[in-house]
Amino acid sequence: MLKPIPLKNIRIHDAFFSGRIETARRVAIPYMLDALNDRIPGVPRSGCIANFEIAAGRKKGSFTGFVFQDSDLWKWIEGAAYSLAGHPDPELEKEIDRAIELAGEAQLPDGYLDTYYIINGIEKRFTNLKDHHEMYVAGHMFEAACAYYEVTGKRALLEIACRFADCIDAHFGPEEGKRRGYPGHEEIELGLARLAADTGEPRYLKLAAFFLDERGKQPYYFDREAEERGEKAPGERKNQFQTYSYYQADRPVREQTAAVGHAVRQGYLLAGMAEVGGQTGDAGMTDAARRIWENIVSRQMYITGGVGSTHEGEAYSFDYDLPPERCYTETCAAISLAMTSVRLGRIAPHGKYGDIVERTLYNGILSGVSLDGTRYFYMNPLEVWPERCEKRQDLRIDAERQGWFGCACCPPNVLRTLTGLGNYLFETDGDTLYVDQYVSCSAEAELESGRLSFEVESRMPWEGLAEIRILRPAAGCRIRLRIPSWAGERRLLVNGRETECEEKDGYITLEGPFREGDVIRLELPMQVKLMHAAMHTPNYAGRRAVMKGPLVYCLEEADNGKELWNLSLEDGPAEVEHRADLLNGVDVIRLRGQRETTDEALYAEGEVSREPAELTLVPYYAWGNRGKGEMAVWIRKA
Amino acid sequence: MLKPIPLKNIRIHDAFFSGRIETARRVAIPYMLDALNDRIPGVPRSGCIANFEIAAGRKKGSFTGFVFQDSDLWKWIEGAAYSLAGHPDPELEKEIDRAIELAGEAQLPDGYLDTYYIINGIEKRFTNLKDHHEMYVAGHMFEAACAYYEVTGKRALLEIACRFADCIDAHFGPEEGKRRGYPGHEEIELGLARLAADTGEPRYLKLAAFFLDERGKQPYYFDREAEERGEKAPGERKNQFQTYSYYQADRPVREQTAAVGHAVRQGYLLAGMAEVGGQTGDAGMTDAARRIWENIVSRQMYITGGVGSTHEGEAYSFDYDLPPERCYTETCAAISLAMTSVRLGRIAPHGKYGDIVERTLYNGILSGVSLDGTRYFYMNPLEVWPERCEKRQDLRIDAERQGWFGCACCPPNVLRTLTGLGNYLFETDGDTLYVDQYVSCSAEAELESGRLSFEVESRMPWEGLAEIRILRPAAGCRIRLRIPSWAGERRLLVNGRETECEEKDGYITLEGPFREGDVIRLELPMQVKLMHAAMHTPNYAGRRAVMKGPLVYCLEEADNGKELWNLSLEDGPAEVEHRADLLNGVDVIRLRGQRETTDEALYAEGEVSREPAELTLVPYYAWGNRGKGEMAVWIRKA
Repeated sequence: MLKPIPLKNIRIHDAFFSGRIETARRVAIPYMLDALNDRIPGVPRSGCIANFEIAAGRKKGSFTGFVFQDSDLWKWIEGAAYSLAGHPDPELEKEIDRAIELAGEAQLPDGYLDTYYIINGIEKRFTNLKDHHEMYVAGHMFEAACAYYEVTGKRALLEIACRFADCIDAHFGPEEGKRRGYPGHEEIELGLARLAADTGEPRYLKLAAFFLDERGKQPYYFDREAEERGEKAPGERKNQFQTYSYYQADRPVREQTAAVGHAVRQGYLLAGMAEVGGQTGDAGMTDAARRIWENIVSRQMYITGGVGSTHEGEAYSFDYDLPPERCYTETCAAISLAMTSVRLGRIAPHGKYGDIVERTLYNGILSGVSLDGTRYFYMNPLEVWPERCEKRQDLRIDAERQGWFGCACCPPNVLRTLTGLGNYLFETDGDTLYVDQYVSCSAEAELESGRLSFEVESRMPWEGLAEIRILRPAAGCRIRLRIPSWAGERRLLVNGRETECEEKDGYITLEGPFREGDVIRLELPMQVKLMHAAMHTPNYAGRRAVMKGPLVYCLEEADNGKELWNLSLEDGPAEVEHRADLLNGVDVIRLRGQRETTDEALYAEGEVSREPAELTLVPYYAWGNRGKGEMAVWIRKA
Repeated sequence: MLKPIPLKNIRIHDAFFSGRIETARRVAIPYMLDALNDRIPGVPRSGCIANFEIAAGRKKGSFTGFVFQDSDLWKWIEGAAYSLAGHPDPELEKEIDRAIELAGEAQLPDGYLDTYYIINGIEKRFTNLKDHHEMYVAGHMFEAACAYYEVTGKRALLEIACRFADCIDAHFGPEEGKRRGYPGHEEIELGLARLAADTGEPRYLKLAAFFLDERGKQPYYFDREAEERGEKAPGERKNQFQTYSYYQADRPVREQTAAVGHAVRQGYLLAGMAEVGGQTGDAGMTDAARRIWENIVSRQMYITGGVGSTHEGEAYSFDYDLPPERCYTETCAAISLAMTSVRLGRIAPHGKYGDIVERTLYNGILSGVSLDGTRYFYMNPLEVWPERCEKRQDLRIDAERQGWFGCACCPPNVLRTLTGLGNYLFETDGDTLYVDQYVSCSAEAELESGRLSFEVESRMPWEGLAEIRILRPAAGCRIRLRIPSWAGERRLLVNGRETECEEKDGYITLEGPFREGDVIRLELPMQVKLMHAAMHTPNYAGRRAVMKGPLVYCLEEADNGKELWNLSLEDGPAEVEHRADLLNGVDVIRLRGQRETTDEALYAEGEVSREPAELTLVPYYAWGNRGKGEMAVWIRKA
């Protein structure tokens, strides 16, 4: 299995991403800490830190928030920890240490640590794995512990995590006397596998594999625990939230073939399957994960990389059902797709995994946070008519980003993705360096034949140009560069000399040896493309989405006026202009089009008037940063 | 105010409607009676007659169904009564008399008659006007009583109705000691006004006017009754079903300007306002009704005459929000729009009212029932992808008509509309006969100067041809013929001689005198028209709906294969063929078009393949009679 370059060995200085990461560091990290501490007036009360204080006995009070409220702290720590890798910050580290100390105080002697049950009655713990998210919370704790340990080398949270993992391991597993349960919301599988990798403790990996393979076995564990609580078994209920497919537990994961149910759960399950399967070398497990992933990216993914077509259950619906306005496309779900993709790429490298990481990162994930880093989308629709969002009770789409959410899963998830961006860029395998995403940075990779130091200078996403400069070669090093699916004719230059390289599995390979100062230059002409969707998707016939490189573009009311639906695209040249003053600097695309107008009659015969119109498009990730207004990704072709 | 020709004076023999009416008489009337008597295996149990039997003390048991279950009987009686006008049937009359006898037995000494409260505890009656539908049920009873009395002259049900009306009048009104309540679901206003007209009792009209004008006054009655029940006032709740606009009670009806809330309630309110305003000559009331009606037909009505854009609250949403797939467009709501339109036309005659009656009748109402008369749509969407209906939990659209509903409001409503079709055809005013709908029939109208007998022979909706033959003239008679909005160049011939007639307010007027045997022939060329929607509606830009005369057409999978969204319309001549063998005989329209195909990639660049395709369209009312399949009214223009 390939391994990522550790985050602490990467320093990002990217024209596109560094500003966003810096905003995350300077704005989102303190903002979220304030939110977790209930110090921001006017946003829904989190109660997250207060819950830990109550659980630790530091103060009196009752539990606030969702059963998974603790996870907001863990995700914040994970995100903050990654930030330290790129930007040491002793004050922030102290804040994290204080939170870890508090968590340690709240932890029970047997290792249990979930403030919901510590406060509300420990006797009920582990009685509702289906809905009460203890395992999900634990998974995020384990990820946070690994992140903080990997970046700082500090073990305090790692030890807290191990104690909780040991506690869970003592209660669950195939062994006599243990319960054969599994979580209703996946995440612990990935967390345990990361913990196993960082601690070398094989029990954690075994437990993760157990949780994965136990899902969907009959008789259903969720039935059993419900009966033990004296409740009706969920399988008897009609509500889809109560059916097993919502939890990806209607059948064993190895038998599942398509993405179903809650999209974030599905994504975390897949990431866990890929991580566990990768570590254990279990081909059956990784094949199953790849099969479901293929279903997603070929039939259930929006062009932005968003997934989850329906708000009912925040879920996948079915193949080719991808309505652009009425989607859920939760930011967390896009993140989970990136997390899965990067892991599948580590098992059997192929450019297609990096393509999806790129698609989600530049579009459906980045759209989740405002340019100023303080406001978030939970849902990322591809078409917004604000009046409908506000007046149709059945739409459940926010027309504008919100400051915080009662269910605050997305903000810290975006945070950990941005500050942990380095996790998605490179992989190593023996003496091979894989360059998956072209983000300007300097990095050091430990290869079989020694340490390789290099720099990447990239102009993406605005220009298809990246240079890799070898600072310190490793003797046996070879380099594989991912060729993005949007790239047409490519040029590869090594020290200025054009070099032919065959593409295989989405990569071109440069065999070494390399010398200090070698420069590998990749030129990928970046053209404006009009994309169509597969004929089986009902909402896109006759429409096009505009892309340039990895970026999906959109029409906004701010540039094109109201009633975007009356605009259509004509054939003609695209004009691209870089506007440094706009939306923190974007390439704007202008296309020739038409605007239709009719008289006021609701229904009428006769010709519709058409006037030439210049369509102005901005990157989708940047939409909604200029006040409330209409937005559309898919545009009618005139 | 204009008056309709009484139903008993009309005999319909129309090539288009008589078959549907006969199916209603022979199939739907006995089917529904069986359903009300719980004699049909496999359909949801009604319990309607059983409730009356329990209330009458004939048997023991508990109440079954909704709080408004009684209304199914009343609507069935209304529909069956109208049927007797066109087709005397002693056996059916006996069935109705038996039901009336049963209802009389169930009626309490003080006149109260609602089996829900008689069975469940009379002390709670009139304590929840907002949600418990007693007034709605009473309104349907009054309409049934009037219908049966008007057709048969029998007074038994009329007297039961008067006793209940007196009971309600004793409890509600502006007078000291009475309650200032009004119903959460309107209908009683129309029922009381009809009862006033048939009995000459002015108290009923006064009570109806009271109910209308009391709506929306502050402090809100719904708050007061909720507080009296010890509950939270609905105004404090967030759920839209609990807000006052859902009930058209957020402000006084005279101040309302747009259709809001539950669509059927809105429609019955408007019909009541028009009926009461028309009878009392209250211009303020009728102006308000007309204003709301204008809002509907100019901004909130589907091209089929369906209304109600959202399933949330079965409600109107807002101006120009008319999504074709995700609509509610309840059959009952379209009926209520026809009921309102015909009444507004009686107050200030204008062809536009008959246009809406025609649009709803031939499209959004008739689509509610299968050609064989046994299956019903509650919702009448303009676009159906069955897989989405079945798999997307948030869509809530049936892809196929159902045999019966737990909430069985639509089937008897369609029944009473079809058997009562004569109510929508003609109006009289002094010596003027208004011909609003061209349906073949013979009729007698009582004009100021005597009785006018005439026949109508119409080829509509397939040909724009109607002849009116005078059988027995009335001395001072003049005739006004509605010119439908779809008509282009018209020809009017009187006894074969072309006659010029100016159109005014949607009518042409023929001054008499007429002689026996005079034939007035109206020729309205009927062309296939491609209709577009107002630019303010977001879902229709670049699309067209095909109409011919009053009929809206649609694509069905049965004729055009799957994935209708890949079809688009080209310019070119329309081919019309009458197919006597298809769908009980329809004109099929064929148009030149294209089918787009793409390869299997979910998103791809490049040209989309186009192949010529012949589009075959059938009338919308007849869709869904050939098994489950896709349907679309609005088609992309290539």
